[in-house]
Amino acid sequence: MKIGIVGGTGDIGEGIAMRLAPKYEVVVGSRDEVRAQASCVCSLDKLKNRGNSSCVLKGATNQDAVSCSDVVILAVPFKNAQVTLEGLSGFEDKIVISPINPMEKRDYFMFVPPKEGSAALMVRGLLPKEARICSAFNTIAANKWKALEEDLTYSVPVCGDDPEAKKVVMDIVNSVSKLQAYDAGPLAASSMVESLTPLLLNIARYNKMRDVGMQFL
Amino acid sequence: MKIGIVGGTGDIGEGIAMRLAPKYEVVVGSRDEVRAQASCVCSLDKLKNRGNSSCVLKGATNQDAVSCSDVVILAVPFKNAQVTLEGLSGFEDKIVISPINPMEKRDYFMFVPPKEGSAALMVRGLLPKEARICSAFNTIAANKWKALEEDLTYSVPVCGDDPEAKKVVMDIVNSVSKLQAYDAGPLAASSMVESLTPLLLNIARYNKMRDVGMQFL
Repeated sequence: MKIGIVGGTGDIGEGIAMRLAPKYEVVVGSRDEVRAQASCVCSLDKLKNRGNSSCVLKGATNQDAVSCSDVVILAVPFKNAQVTLEGLSGFEDKIVISPINPMEKRDYFMFVPPKEGSAALMVRGLLPKEARICSAFNTIAANKWKALEEDLTYSVPVCGDDPEAKKVVMDIVNSVSKLQAYDAGPLAASSMVESLTPLLLNIARYNKMRDVGMQFL
Repeated sequence: MKIGIVGGTGDIGEGIAMRLAPKYEVVVGSRDEVRAQASCVCSLDKLKNRGNSSCVLKGATNQDAVSCSDVVILAVPFKNAQVTLEGLSGFEDKIVISPINPMEKRDYFMFVPPKEGSAALMVRGLLPKEARICSAFNTIAANKWKALEEDLTYSVPVCGDDPEAKKVVMDIVNSVSKLQAYDAGPLAASSMVESLTPLLLNIARYNKMRDVGMQFL
């Protein structure tokens, strides 16, 4: 299975790429293909140092990352999501993962959804109706993605309306470190997943913690 | 310290009363004082069977639970909150804990806040401005409150604008079983705490689990 990462050289994207590369063929997309290739060289080096010398990680444009993949992860900040998606095509029948969280930083972090109710529903409106959209990976901090020496022991809620696509996404989640996927219902329930992230950022901020995650129990 | 529970004979209220009674003087409020007294007899019996024979647990009207307490817990469902609070007085200078979650059951559970943005902010608008309101205990299932034989190992986010009141509430949280309180920011951030509960109900529903809670890590 080929996984493309739109925004694959960003903070979250780079970490996701390294965590997935030992298991999947990963295409790191960027607006700047050269930058994507440089990021892959660097990531492959880090993986090699950890004994993973046979990973497949390729740099590409965001469009190529979409076109040549079975699963596309939208590793872009909310503020760039609409512009980025409007510039891309070929999402028909792709499984698309949105880890996007619409939020604002005031004195505290606040969940501020778009008019659709959530980033995932906004993404659904921007992509062709054949795209099979799930939200997942919303609450894992960029630093944790990149800290390859650390196990990720978090719970990961997954929303989506296509049961088969959701199963694929949950399997991907469960293949990464010690992440555990949970079905969190239809895509319309994604707002409650996305609002976890500003909550976790507030918990970190007000309790002098870093990179807070969560587990269901 | 005296803790009054408005709605103390409801599912959540009864469990909260039993969990707090070994540490605090607890006044169980109800619209029906006789029912409150009967609930206390029953709860004291359960506590005695577990070796807690010196608990103070008194049945009262909701108004008396407010009037004679230092801290008031609003253990009422969202749909009854406004009517209940409009019928009560004497909240000035009380510390008030809102565990209230505004949500609807569709095919899935959905966070549906009132126009104020959260139940906690709605409560603030209904009470005198001297009331010191915090949200806490939002995500603990009624069954877990009542299962005295089980440790409660959950994380409990606490929101509020009065630092001293928040400290008192966090100390109460930390005194119950193995609950751990976390400062989740100002009362305006409570919507992100309240929306955890429908999320946890969805997780339970779609993963065939029961009484799901969560921990920060």
